[in-house]
Amino acid sequence: METVTTIGLVAGFCTTVSFLPQVVKTVKTHRADDLSFAMLLIFLVGLALWFFYGIAIGSLPIIIANSVTIGLVSVLILLKWRCCGTRTTG
Amino acid sequence: METVTTIGLVAGFCTTVSFLPQVVKTVKTHRADDLSFAMLLIFLVGLALWFFYGIAIGSLPIIIANSVTIGLVSVLILLKWRCCGTRTTG
Repeated sequence: METVTTIGLVAGFCTTVSFLPQVVKTVKTHRADDLSFAMLLIFLVGLALWFFYGIAIGSLPIIIANSVTIGLVSVLILLKWRCCGTRTTG
Repeated sequence: METVTTIGLVAGFCTTVSFLPQVVKTVKTHRADDLSFAMLLIFLVGLALWFFYGIAIGSLPIIIANSVTIGLVSVLILLKWRCCGTRTTG
């Protein structure tokens, strides 16, 4: 595999996996008050666009990374909305 | 400008700008307890790698978006570390 693709895959691994401790923390503490709902929503739109960009330029790291991150961020949005984000808004 | 590049720039704009409401919220509330420190750190490493990937494949959207996001996430890490993240860890 090309070095460039490897860097992209490791980059995608990091930015994707980074949301796992956030999901675990939110599930464990049942608190998402300090997470910005606006951040999560705009980020999700951006991820969807990156996904299409990845398809357009034929970049496997961008396609894979954004697919998984879309899933994790969707979980956070659901948690924030349904159970864990009542103290503050924004 | 190519449509593909435009999609990438809008994608980068969204995933970058999304961190602004988070920074504003954290500065205003002085609370970052519900933000995962591990998430922010791993995300920062990933962003740095995406930045190098963008240079390697010559993608302007990836380079620009990740530069700005690195700045915003660094601010969040500083806020979490210095002022606003004392209630819980993780």
